[in-house]
Amino acid sequence: YCRMCGGPMELALPEGDGQWRHVCQRCSYVDYQNPRLVVGCIVQHEGRILLCRRGIEPQRGLWTPHPAPSLAAPAGYLECGESSAAGAARETLEEAGARVDIQGPFCHYDIPGISQIYVLFRGRLAPPFTYAAQQPESLEAALFAPEEIPWDQLAFSSVSIALRSYLADQASGRFAVHHGVIQKRKGSGPNEPGSFQLVDHFALPTTVPSRQQD
Amino acid sequence: YCRMCGGPMELALPEGDGQWRHVCQRCSYVDYQNPRLVVGCIVQHEGRILLCRRGIEPQRGLWTPHPAPSLAAPAGYLECGESSAAGAARETLEEAGARVDIQGPFCHYDIPGISQIYVLFRGRLAPPFTYAAQQPESLEAALFAPEEIPWDQLAFSSVSIALRSYLADQASGRFAVHHGVIQKRKGSGPNEPGSFQLVDHFALPTTVPSRQQD
Repeated sequence: YCRMCGGPMELALPEGDGQWRHVCQRCSYVDYQNPRLVVGCIVQHEGRILLCRRGIEPQRGLWTPHPAPSLAAPAGYLECGESSAAGAARETLEEAGARVDIQGPFCHYDIPGISQIYVLFRGRLAPPFTYAAQQPESLEAALFAPEEIPWDQLAFSSVSIALRSYLADQASGRFAVHHGVIQKRKGSGPNEPGSFQLVDHFALPTTVPSRQQD
Repeated sequence: YCRMCGGPMELALPEGDGQWRHVCQRCSYVDYQNPRLVVGCIVQHEGRILLCRRGIEPQRGLWTPHPAPSLAAPAGYLECGESSAAGAARETLEEAGARVDIQGPFCHYDIPGISQIYVLFRGRLAPPFTYAAQQPESLEAALFAPEEIPWDQLAFSSVSIALRSYLADQASGRFAVHHGVIQKRKGSGPNEPGSFQLVDHFALPTTVPSRQQD
């Protein structure tokens, strides 16, 4: 139904436009659909990284002996009227109960298969340096040392790729800015091993030191 | 009108959600609105930069003795199913008739006042190194040496800020990756002098040389 007049929508190819669009058959309104931006933070504190167990779909965690792949960096859809960095800090507060200082941009991954763009920042816990799961959004919030990260419990391919790049940058001594495209096999899960790959990857080395300083 | 059932929409605050949303009074569908991503290219060729005079609104150019501020880097809305870099290359072909090699990400500017995110890449003309205005999208496509850029004819604050950063990086010898927020005075035009400023600016110096090589 047309959001403007309530009329019937049909797929059509508007003149001068190379794309099929939903067009109202009564008032000719074109309902453009655009990809959505997901913003979030890789939050570091004393060498450990803050992750949340998701309490809402998709990839809701279950308290079973073998937890479902439900861990993720705090992230969510950018809202109208806010900046990407402000949205990333808001999501970190909403999901992990943590205040953060945004240190800089870290990665931009397009996921064209689901029309999402994942933009993650580097952040550090800010005073009072506390965090806590925020029901119902998250069931658990915890800091993980690099060697403790349960890779098979990560909810999303984007988080998995971003964390690996982050840790590699830490080992190298300098952060890079990462940009690339996550190609997913059609019908695969959000983080199914072997179902996705990062292509067209730019990793621009920056002069920002990545060694742990605190 | 609700796009799902055609019912009446009203602003409401869904439970567990901190934002006002358009919610259907009949079927409870929530019509989320999210910011839109504009992707484009700063295209360099032999030390000059490719700009187009816009043929469509907003900021359509007029062939008068005093041209309206209508010059812009080729850019447009990212489409569903495409990557940001692919979208930037597509817009460059559609608006400037030019094939480009994407060299890397350059800037990400949030413009929360209009719920847009501007992501521009560095690009270079690719074979056959030609360009041409593509009616009706653009009225003119031309290469400008840095000292020839008509700053008072640029259509958008984002393009103005991006080009100044790009030229400053060229002078410094290294490209940075830029990230920031463009704050605009309410009701101001798309590139009104004194009506906007870049805040929360991260300029991460990279190791990518920016001196002209061809």
